[in-house]
This record gives sequence, structure tokens and C-alpha cells, in this order.
Amino acid sequence: MSSRFTSLEGGVVAPVGFVCSGVSAGLKKSGKRDVAILAAQEACPAAAVFTLNSMAAPPVHLSRAHIASGMARAVVTNSGNANACTGAQGMRDAEAMARACADSLGVDASMVLVASTGVIGMPLPIERVTAGIADAAALLDSADGTSAAEAIMTTDTFPKQIALSVDVDGSRYVVGGMAKGSGMIMPNMATMLAYVTTDAPLTSEATRAALTTATTRTFNRISVDSDTSTNDMVVLMASGAAGGDAIAPDSPRYEPVAAAIEEVCRELARMIVRDGEGATKLITVTVRGAASEDDAHEAALSIANSPLFKTAIFGADANWGRVVMAVGKSRAKVDPDAIEVIFAGITTCKHGTGFLFDEKAAAIALANDEIDVIVDLHIGEGQATVLTCDLSYEYVRINGDYRT
Amino acid sequence: MSSRFTSLEGGVVAPVGFVCSGVSAGLKKSGKRDVAILAAQEACPAAAVFTLNSMAAPPVHLSRAHIASGMARAVVTNSGNANACTGAQGMRDAEAMARACADSLGVDASMVLVASTGVIGMPLPIERVTAGIADAAALLDSADGTSAAEAIMTTDTFPKQIALSVDVDGSRYVVGGMAKGSGMIMPNMATMLAYVTTDAPLTSEATRAALTTATTRTFNRISVDSDTSTNDMVVLMASGAAGGDAIAPDSPRYEPVAAAIEEVCRELARMIVRDGEGATKLITVTVRGAASEDDAHEAALSIANSPLFKTAIFGADANWGRVVMAVGKSRAKVDPDAIEVIFAGITTCKHGTGFLFDEKAAAIALANDEIDVIVDLHIGEGQATVLTCDLSYEYVRINGDYRT
Repeated sequence: MSSRFTSLEGGVVAPVGFVCSGVSAGLKKSGKRDVAILAAQEACPAAAVFTLNSMAAPPVHLSRAHIASGMARAVVTNSGNANACTGAQGMRDAEAMARACADSLGVDASMVLVASTGVIGMPLPIERVTAGIADAAALLDSADGTSAAEAIMTTDTFPKQIALSVDVDGSRYVVGGMAKGSGMIMPNMATMLAYVTTDAPLTSEATRAALTTATTRTFNRISVDSDTSTNDMVVLMASGAAGGDAIAPDSPRYEPVAAAIEEVCRELARMIVRDGEGATKLITVTVRGAASEDDAHEAALSIANSPLFKTAIFGADANWGRVVMAVGKSRAKVDPDAIEVIFAGITTCKHGTGFLFDEKAAAIALANDEIDVIVDLHIGEGQATVLTCDLSYEYVRINGDYRT
Repeated sequence: MSSRFTSLEGGVVAPVGFVCSGVSAGLKKSGKRDVAILAAQEACPAAAVFTLNSMAAPPVHLSRAHIASGMARAVVTNSGNANACTGAQGMRDAEAMARACADSLGVDASMVLVASTGVIGMPLPIERVTAGIADAAALLDSADGTSAAEAIMTTDTFPKQIALSVDVDGSRYVVGGMAKGSGMIMPNMATMLAYVTTDAPLTSEATRAALTTATTRTFNRISVDSDTSTNDMVVLMASGAAGGDAIAPDSPRYEPVAAAIEEVCRELARMIVRDGEGATKLITVTVRGAASEDDAHEAALSIANSPLFKTAIFGADANWGRVVMAVGKSRAKVDPDAIEVIFAGITTCKHGTGFLFDEKAAAIALANDEIDVIVDLHIGEGQATVLTCDLSYEYVRINGDYRT
């Protein structure tokens, strides 16, 4: 984390002006928590980005409508059931979730965003969900974000939360966040559920600007398996409880707060990849020297999504040929005689051909659980980094019998 | 196979006018065959399609130059080493392979196409290869294609060959073929090595037309893992040994011969998918009722390439939600309330929502090793089919330690 930020405990409720809770409503067979509420003390400026999947689920459609006002009071989430491909009943159920949460908070349903994650195509057991929402509403507090972070999990192996503070001209602002992964993660948009809170007095416009920039640079730069969910959503809420003048995108205080929001998103994105289904290694793929940033991004994504590359990393194999193959199948401009590939600090390919390296040293370097792969195309200034994870037996096991 | 064709033995040498052989030159540690020659009795009309990967290997560049004349005498192939990312030396080695083969046949090197498959980025042990070519040239015969079909294999578990005949107005034409897979298979072009021979007197133009159409409809409609090799090539050679007038694209005899060539390509493509790395199931994904054929193709490919879908099939799970997700993330136009999904004959989703089905019956149907998945978008007439295979533990094992 950059030294301009200070790490804090508390997750999404670390910033002043937020409460949260997470309960078990019986949606998960395991009996684990599966309903979460995150609420501001009063309606506040907020923004959200959503999946671009054209089969987007009813809660996505409902939340997109509700966030149009630029204000929100709460987000209610259930895990264990995606409420996707559930037709008109699915929309009625999403509305019922918003209403149950709104009623418990004494606000209009349009001030509540709704998110669902889990199995696609099963009717939501709405009575259980609304009972869970009532339970959760009774437990809202500002002590700690863990119960909410747990309640939004599906195949995640650990809750993902973070908080930090940033000092700006004598004021201290806090930004908190929580997220869940971990399969079906692929750029193009919000690519998972993530919630970011801050007590900085951002305007609605500032929340939109900060979230869009942060998402582009963080959540849209990770990929677990190239699949894109029907339900993904990233939400930013700004309680303004830290006080002071409103911060618009052109305020001098906007940049440091936006940077803190981006840092929270980056850390959450890292945690999601770290916890990719079956992942044993976190892989940072950087393409530099590309003709443009778009080219660099496309080439990096092509590498990060290549099953052959991902299985090679799982096997601790410095198989740079697969990196070159993946760059070549992307639409990025390349000079085949210029490309250079560096695996975990070890140059394996230079001027487009193999570069003698110590296989033993490479195997040792690749045994680490964080691997950097750098490709230098040596034709321009474009650079982009994509985070991904390896493809393991465990990914196959998890996804071979997830539903049944 | 369509009833208009008769199945034959012999593979690529089933048509009159071809010889082949396959030998071991010591490129594979296993000592298995790794150099193959396929030759016509004399230079004949020929066509080829090549990988679109921008890191295409030297043999691809050389063969593209040599086929420009529309004529070829032979194709020489080595397996065990891709001669890719090997720079100027790689091009010299590819030229040496062409020359060695040409010398043994007494023709100009420009009449010889060259293909290599195997590990990327290792220098080709060219002395061994040219010695192998001399050995292979001494063994050329027209008895059977198996030794050549074996010599082009890499991770394939069985040689892939086929031959059939078609009767056209009193003439009988034979078409033969062999191919190798099996990882790094993804549409966009020639996506593997495949060689098709016929004794029909096709003109050069007719070989180009027939090969382009057949490739578009067969090899470009399969996907094992969405990765695209640097070395792929499909070659068609027409010896004309069956006699009779030359067949141009506008000849009445063109269509039935082209159909036979397409059938051979289709069967080879099926075998490649059947033998996809670690595959336990052959999956036929058909999208129909799309706004256009392009839309149908794109949606079918998105399904076929989805790791979540492929692992679900491996687990015999009728997880139609992942099918809908994959359709949604493609750029195909969809009406979320119209989509229908049929798994192995069992309707699982109708009007965009779950359709009650017998999970037990579905599990039994999905235990088969050939699975049909049909998606009807119900908005137009576009239809396309893509073949793929499941994603298994074995894929991870094979690719986790292929190089080392």
C-alpha cells in the first residue's frame, strides 16, 4: 500500500456514518451467513457500476434504476442464490428485498440497492430472504464489517475487507471496502460484488467519477477464468460524516480521496484474484513497450486468460512459448523479432527467441505464490497490468460439482 | 457420415497418386515417430490455410510463400519441436527441411511445404531432422497412412485419419485425410495440422475454394481451450490421378467433391476435439434462432470456451445458468425472456427462466461421452454449431508439466 495511506480495521464501517450486519437466512445449505445489509446513517451520494452481461439478473436491473438518483441509503445482499434467469418473479423478489430493507430503515425502496450472488436459475425463497433482512436490520452496527463481508461470500475461502485513511490538508478521510469473488471473474465492467464506503463529503458526481476511474484501473484489470457473471456490481457510498465542504470532481481535495478509493479497490481486486477458485498463485502480468495502452491491455488479458499459460504457472513451468502464443493471438501489434519475456525476474525470451536461462533457478522462482510475468514488446510506450491466478485441479473440482 | 460417401481404409494415401511415411528421428524423448513426409507422385494443385497468430513460426512463413504458386509436391512435418520463436536460425532450419525433402524427391524446394509442431522456442536439432527426412523419403509408399499419421502426433492419444469415396456421374473420387491436435485448439484459421488428399482433378483455384469453405465450416468451428497455436496449417493436395477433365469451381463435379473434402475435414475436426487434452466428453454446442449466423457462431463459441461450462460438463452437471451466462457475455443479440436451453435432449430453461426437469434423468444423460447442448435464442434464423470438449483434471495435469 502506498505510504500516503494508513491502514485501519473495520472494513466498510471504518468510515464514520455507516452500519452493517450479516446473518444466516437459511439460503446456504451450510447454514453460514447469507444476508447482509450495509447502510449509511442517512441517504447519501452514491454510484454503482454493473455487469455488461446481456443476461443481467433482476437485482442488477433494479439497482441500476435505483442508483439513477445518485443517492442511496443502503445495499442489501443475499448469497447462495443469484436470482438470475428468474423472469418476472425474479424482479418481484428483488423489489421485495428492497422494500423489506427500506421498511426496516424507514426509507423509500428506491433508496435501497439490491445484490444477489450464487446459483443461477433457481427461484429465490423470498420469505426466508425477507425474514433474514429483518433479522439483519435489527443487528446493524458500526463495530466491524466482518459479519457482512462473510455474508456476501459464495465459494470465497476468506472474507475480503480493507480500510484506510488519507490525510488531506488537515482533514482525515476514511475509505472502507468489502468484496466477494471468486469464479466467473473477468473484466469488462464490475466483475464481482464490491462495496466501498467513505466518510468524505463527495458529491454524487464525484462518487461516479471516482468509482468509474477506480473500476477501470482495478476490477476491470483482473481475470480469474474469463467468464463474466450476470450479477456483478460495485457500489460506492459517501456518507460525508467527516464533515467539511462538499468535494466535487474539480475540488482540490478530490484527487487524494479518489486515490484512496482506487487503492481500496486495488486491494479488494488483489484479494479476489488471490482467492480465485482453486488458485495457488497470484500472477501479475505486465505488458510494456506496446504500441498503445489498449494494445498492452489486450495482450496482457490474452495471456491472463490463456488456459495453457495458467496451467503452466500451476506447474511452476517457465513456459514462455505460451506467453508468446497468447500475445500473438491477441490483436495487439507485435514485432516478432523484438518481443522479450521475463518470468519472475528471469529473462526467458529476448528478440523473439529463447534466451538461455537456469531452469533450476526458474523452477525455484516459480515455486513462489506470487509470480510476475513481464512482456516487453519493444515497439512503443503502452503499458498495462492484469492480475490473474493459475488454473489448478481444484478449479476443476470446485466447478465440476458446484451446483449439485 | 452422410450416405453419399463410402468409408475407406488408408488415410491420406487412399486416393491414387500419393505416398507417405513416418519415422523416428530422435526428436521425441519417447523415441516415437516424429518425421513424416506426404508426397504426390508429381507436383499437383494444392492449397493451404495458416494460423492467424501474429507470432507465426518460420515453417508457416515458408509454407505460405511456397504455396503461393498453387502447386506442391510434398509436405514434410516434424513433431516434438515447433521451430517457433527461433528467429533467423529457425527460418534457415525450415528451409533446410524443405531442401532435404525436395532433394530426396528430385524437385525444387519451392514445391515442398514444411510444418513443425511441439515445444515453442527450442532450436531445431536440424541434423537429426534432415537425417530423418532422408530415412522417411526412402520408406515412402502408398500402402497405408498410419505411420505418417503417428509421426505428426504430439499429445494426441490416437492417430487421426480417414478416407472416403464419392461417386459423381460414373466417376469415383477418393478423399483422404490425417490430422493432429490436441491442445491450443481454437478457431480463427487453420487450428492444428491437417492434411487432405484427393485424386480428383481439381484445379489450383478449386483446391483453394474447397479448402477455404471446408475450413470455415469445420476446423474453425472447434475449440479445445481457446488458445491458438503459432504453427497451425491445413493443406489440401489434388493429384488428379482419378483422371478426367479438370474440375474448376464452376464445374458441375465441383460441389460433390468439395462436399467430400468438407466431410473429411469435419471428421478430422471431430477426432481432434474427441482427443482434446484431458477430454472425457465431446460436446456439440448449437445456437439457433439467432439474429444472424455470426451471432449464433459467436454465442456458441462463447459457450464452448467457457471454463465454467466445460467443468460443469466434466462433472455431468446440467448447469444451464453457465450457458446463459456465456451467451450473455458474448456480443450476440439476445432477448433475455426468450432464451431456451436444452441439455442432452432435456429442456432446462425456457423463456429465460428455469424449466423443471428431472435431475436424475439429466445426470444419466450427461454421463454419456457425447453431449449435445442446444440454445434457441428465439429471435431469428441464425444457426451455428461448435464442437468442444470438457475441462478435466487431466487437462491441468498435461499442461502443468508438458515442457519439463
